[in-house]
Amino acid sequence: MKLSDLGEKKIIKKLAGYLDIGDDTAYIKFKDTYLILTTDMIYQDTHILPHMSWEQIGALVVSVNLSDIASMGAEPIAFLLAYGSPDTDYENFKSLIHGVKTQCDKYHTKYAGGDTNKTEKITLAGFMLGESEKPVLRSGAKIGDLIAVTGTLGSASIGTKILLNTPASNKPPDNPAYNKALQPQPRMKEGLILKEYVNSMTDISDGLATSLTDLTEERGFGAEIILDKLPLDADAITLAQENRLNHIEHALYGEGDYELLFTLSEEKLDDVLAALPITVIGSIKANQKITFIDSQKNKHKIKKCGYEHFKT
Amino acid sequence: MKLSDLGEKKIIKKLAGYLDIGDDTAYIKFKDTYLILTTDMIYQDTHILPHMSWEQIGALVVSVNLSDIASMGAEPIAFLLAYGSPDTDYENFKSLIHGVKTQCDKYHTKYAGGDTNKTEKITLAGFMLGESEKPVLRSGAKIGDLIAVTGTLGSASIGTKILLNTPASNKPPDNPAYNKALQPQPRMKEGLILKEYVNSMTDISDGLATSLTDLTEERGFGAEIILDKLPLDADAITLAQENRLNHIEHALYGEGDYELLFTLSEEKLDDVLAALPITVIGSIKANQKITFIDSQKNKHKIKKCGYEHFKT
Repeated sequence: MKLSDLGEKKIIKKLAGYLDIGDDTAYIKFKDTYLILTTDMIYQDTHILPHMSWEQIGALVVSVNLSDIASMGAEPIAFLLAYGSPDTDYENFKSLIHGVKTQCDKYHTKYAGGDTNKTEKITLAGFMLGESEKPVLRSGAKIGDLIAVTGTLGSASIGTKILLNTPASNKPPDNPAYNKALQPQPRMKEGLILKEYVNSMTDISDGLATSLTDLTEERGFGAEIILDKLPLDADAITLAQENRLNHIEHALYGEGDYELLFTLSEEKLDDVLAALPITVIGSIKANQKITFIDSQKNKHKIKKCGYEHFKT
Repeated sequence: MKLSDLGEKKIIKKLAGYLDIGDDTAYIKFKDTYLILTTDMIYQDTHILPHMSWEQIGALVVSVNLSDIASMGAEPIAFLLAYGSPDTDYENFKSLIHGVKTQCDKYHTKYAGGDTNKTEKITLAGFMLGESEKPVLRSGAKIGDLIAVTGTLGSASIGTKILLNTPASNKPPDNPAYNKALQPQPRMKEGLILKEYVNSMTDISDGLATSLTDLTEERGFGAEIILDKLPLDADAITLAQENRLNHIEHALYGEGDYELLFTLSEEKLDDVLAALPITVIGSIKANQKITFIDSQKNKHKIKKCGYEHFKT
């Protein structure tokens, strides 16, 4: 049996005996608080758009790790980078490191060190240490909870899709959806506000549908999502229409939106809305199904979804 | 200017404006203690001998990170692995993860999570969190300090050298030097004992000569090393003689000995020796030179040494 016969999700499930993970990050009780630990690797062929500048690549490896910290409602403390690349101009390397440092500074994270290696493809493994007195887990959802998200959905995926059909030498036209694809920003502030109100939380960088599964599957719960409620960005709508892309499909299955997906009891909603613009998109159900309901009240089943490493 | 024009050491020096590193690990004051953070990447073409089993590869990525923790006199807390490999049998992957888990357990470290990616070459980035109330730095050496090491020198490098000339399908003959090359063990217990006595410490995985430079250069100090005092392992001596290898050269410049190099004031020596077998090999000098003194009292200058990423 090859790794490609399994795919990343099943591989991780099979490791359950070794690792008690199953959340966005590891969390370890330390004195009177929890240390939050996460690692995310970005790889030239998989995660890096040819249109990204070296600085944007540096910011990206920080952001993907920060987003995991945000999804735990935690504060970042420090970042380390294990860097690998082929030989390149020192200026490129410096730009990448500048991107790392700038993004760390922006989110009040100490860029604390790393390791430098020569590899055939750009391979960047980021490690983030954070802290939370009460980490918000994926597994805390309750039946009847509202399901909500920060920001808008599908923009990064639409931007990426179009960029992949655009020569890297072309500067992408001016549309915020491209920024979301090339320089995603984690929802740190939002995570810290939401942690006071929500029962469960994760980020949706692997796609909303995948993250909905993560929030519900293990508990044997399901979810009902009202497609008309999905928050779509006006700039991305224009872009999707111009390029004949199905915005809803991108919002459900597309990757790269570093937004937070969370559940909360209905009585907390007004308090959250007073603190933060969020969008309720559905609710947690007792029946183990994830259902999408369209404007004609038709029910759609979730499709197999999301990019998985080793899944062909 | 290419990265290969600089080499890893100069690259890191040029990053000084971004990173206040310059030690084996990062250390961050946290409540009444220090959190110790380190990352080391191992890459198929650079660090992995074809003779290593998958389990040994898994153990290796833990050991290289543990050794950095040991060199700070710190205790390990948790390990994360960012895993990358081509598609392979699940059994290989499982063996590697088993090697990670077993090595973490052996040194009382929680294997807390990670990330899984498909890459063209095996690329493993480990991240270790540790703790120390008083980290031992590289920079604490004092003029007149004795220089000492744990264990023996050159064995791993001699074992590696011979293995690289042996087909991977051949089981290496029974000699402990091969074990040191294939399954190095970090000096965790020793680091925790030594921290009570030493003024400075580092590990010598990049070679004794490189580590001597690390301990002295920044302070403007030098070192005098008595070559006859270098501790050599009897099994490795046999192997070096059989293969016409210069043991002293391997002890000075060879890599892969996960021993600790440290300095201490002379009056602490008896206490350390009562607690731990160590070998004094020289002393810290005020003159910015590193000198090796042979049995005829001839003085030798240090050579440019140690593997450096990007250095061709």
